[in-house]
Amino acid sequence: DLGATSLEVALANLAGVIIARQGEAAEVADGPVVVLGRIIAITEALLVQQGCAAAHVYAIGLGVPGPVEFATGLLIAPPLMPGWDAQPIRAMLQASFPQAQVLIDNDVNMMALGELRAGAGRDVENFLCLKIGTGIGAGIVCQGQIYRGSDGCAGDVGHICVDRNGPVCRCGNIGCLEALAAGPAIAARGLALADSGKSPWLARQYAAQHTLRAEDIGLAAAAGEHAAMEIIQDSGRLIGEALASIVNFFNPRLILLGGGVSLIGHQLLSSVRQTVLQRSLPLSNRNLRIEYVGLGRDAGLRGALALALEHVFVAHHAPLALP
Amino acid sequence: DLGATSLEVALANLAGVIIARQGEAAEVADGPVVVLGRIIAITEALLVQQGCAAAHVYAIGLGVPGPVEFATGLLIAPPLMPGWDAQPIRAMLQASFPQAQVLIDNDVNMMALGELRAGAGRDVENFLCLKIGTGIGAGIVCQGQIYRGSDGCAGDVGHICVDRNGPVCRCGNIGCLEALAAGPAIAARGLALADSGKSPWLARQYAAQHTLRAEDIGLAAAAGEHAAMEIIQDSGRLIGEALASIVNFFNPRLILLGGGVSLIGHQLLSSVRQTVLQRSLPLSNRNLRIEYVGLGRDAGLRGALALALEHVFVAHHAPLALP
Repeated sequence: DLGATSLEVALANLAGVIIARQGEAAEVADGPVVVLGRIIAITEALLVQQGCAAAHVYAIGLGVPGPVEFATGLLIAPPLMPGWDAQPIRAMLQASFPQAQVLIDNDVNMMALGELRAGAGRDVENFLCLKIGTGIGAGIVCQGQIYRGSDGCAGDVGHICVDRNGPVCRCGNIGCLEALAAGPAIAARGLALADSGKSPWLARQYAAQHTLRAEDIGLAAAAGEHAAMEIIQDSGRLIGEALASIVNFFNPRLILLGGGVSLIGHQLLSSVRQTVLQRSLPLSNRNLRIEYVGLGRDAGLRGALALALEHVFVAHHAPLALP
Repeated sequence: DLGATSLEVALANLAGVIIARQGEAAEVADGPVVVLGRIIAITEALLVQQGCAAAHVYAIGLGVPGPVEFATGLLIAPPLMPGWDAQPIRAMLQASFPQAQVLIDNDVNMMALGELRAGAGRDVENFLCLKIGTGIGAGIVCQGQIYRGSDGCAGDVGHICVDRNGPVCRCGNIGCLEALAAGPAIAARGLALADSGKSPWLARQYAAQHTLRAEDIGLAAAAGEHAAMEIIQDSGRLIGEALASIVNFFNPRLILLGGGVSLIGHQLLSSVRQTVLQRSLPLSNRNLRIEYVGLGRDAGLRGALALALEHVFVAHHAPLALP
């Protein structure tokens, strides 16, 4: 599982049981050669620990924070990963693990698959996983399967307009959800609070760290700072407004919130829930549950394992050699 | 096919070919006994014309302008059809056609199914039919099948918020798409134009009819009245904004516009297209087409026939009597 600033490698057996794992900080901005090099090195080290050869790796599932053309495993113009555009990730991994079937998908689809197979989405036909981090995106499960849309980019909800008079987003449009409610927007509002003197807590934190992250605003809210709480509520309300439209359209049974920003406190979940209930139709929300992802930070990892496992037994297309 | 103010009955053979049809004005507000009575009477008359008995009707497909619990065929709190709530429509039709399997669904699902089987949606995996009339609703085709959602109410896009400072909708929320862009909103804005003297054409029309319908505003625009054109453009822009969110989320290949209001002129389609292209992401709209429904007014009727036909060969669940 590859994030914008970290990666996590897990080794599982054919029963899907994780037998070893290791994570570390990583910058996707360093590009595929450096980052995939680390993934390969960690995998090889874990294999040595377990007494396994590289040839024993039958399948690799890799989740990445960007849009993927699933059939080819290529990233397509990923905004957070410019150096990765159309790079042959699959071939680069296969060079080290020649027996491996390599499956690449974006991290929200992996998260949704993880929840579908092993988390809160088991036995749920139609649900969403919303990842709130640097960006905002959704993994969609429709009729028991990951739904990727006609061009593989379904679930790109971060660019739904939630404020016609809002700021310009990096996509060029006005008032996108992501520009107003994701991690960087929360951090920027926190910084403004610290600057204005309205939050002594955040001012102290900024003085100590020389930066503020979304989770700092969560800590300030937990420490009782009202203005910080308001930032989180606003973010939850905007996310809830976008989700309400989706609930009316898609009528899911369940929405799971994940990603780093989802961990900044229950205020966010409560505000999302309240807005969705208020803004969507009674018929579409009467059986709807909104929760945090069941598998926490491991949702994406479990999804990548599930995807790999589901392809391992169909990997060989060569004709059988008869005795 | 039952609309808010008209109904259309068609008789088809087992090959799906329409062999007779008849329509008339109808008010759903008259309730199920009156309206279903007319549907039954027209069907019986058409059967007599063709020399068929009521027992030869093997399946009936009925599209209605309200939310339907598909499994039971019951309308659930339909806003345009209050007297029809939870009425046993299926049993009422079966009393006259005892051999018939009765399938009831809402009109936008019927429209989408008609386009999927016989219209512009053939061979399209993921698409929407948007019906713009008294209300606004969508029929969703997902992976080649009608998608109804977890509670059967997927596609209820008329209540997506498109203006936080907009008017109160009949659903109780603020700024719903339907309250701002559907037929009644267009007619009301036309009336205000006629009153204010800004549209001599509409003022004359109102003096002649004592009422204005959405299509009158279309006629005024076609006659070159700029203010009327602006109403249609505004409606198209709002519909386009809601659709842009849906395009980002669902990434469909095709959107088909249908319903009475979709017939008020190409200005509407052009304005919808422009807004969707501007407001949705390039990756999700690069292969997207937005068109009028291929089957025009018959889309719902063809869908009802398709649904009926697809159930006719599985109607009998009684054990076979062995010789």
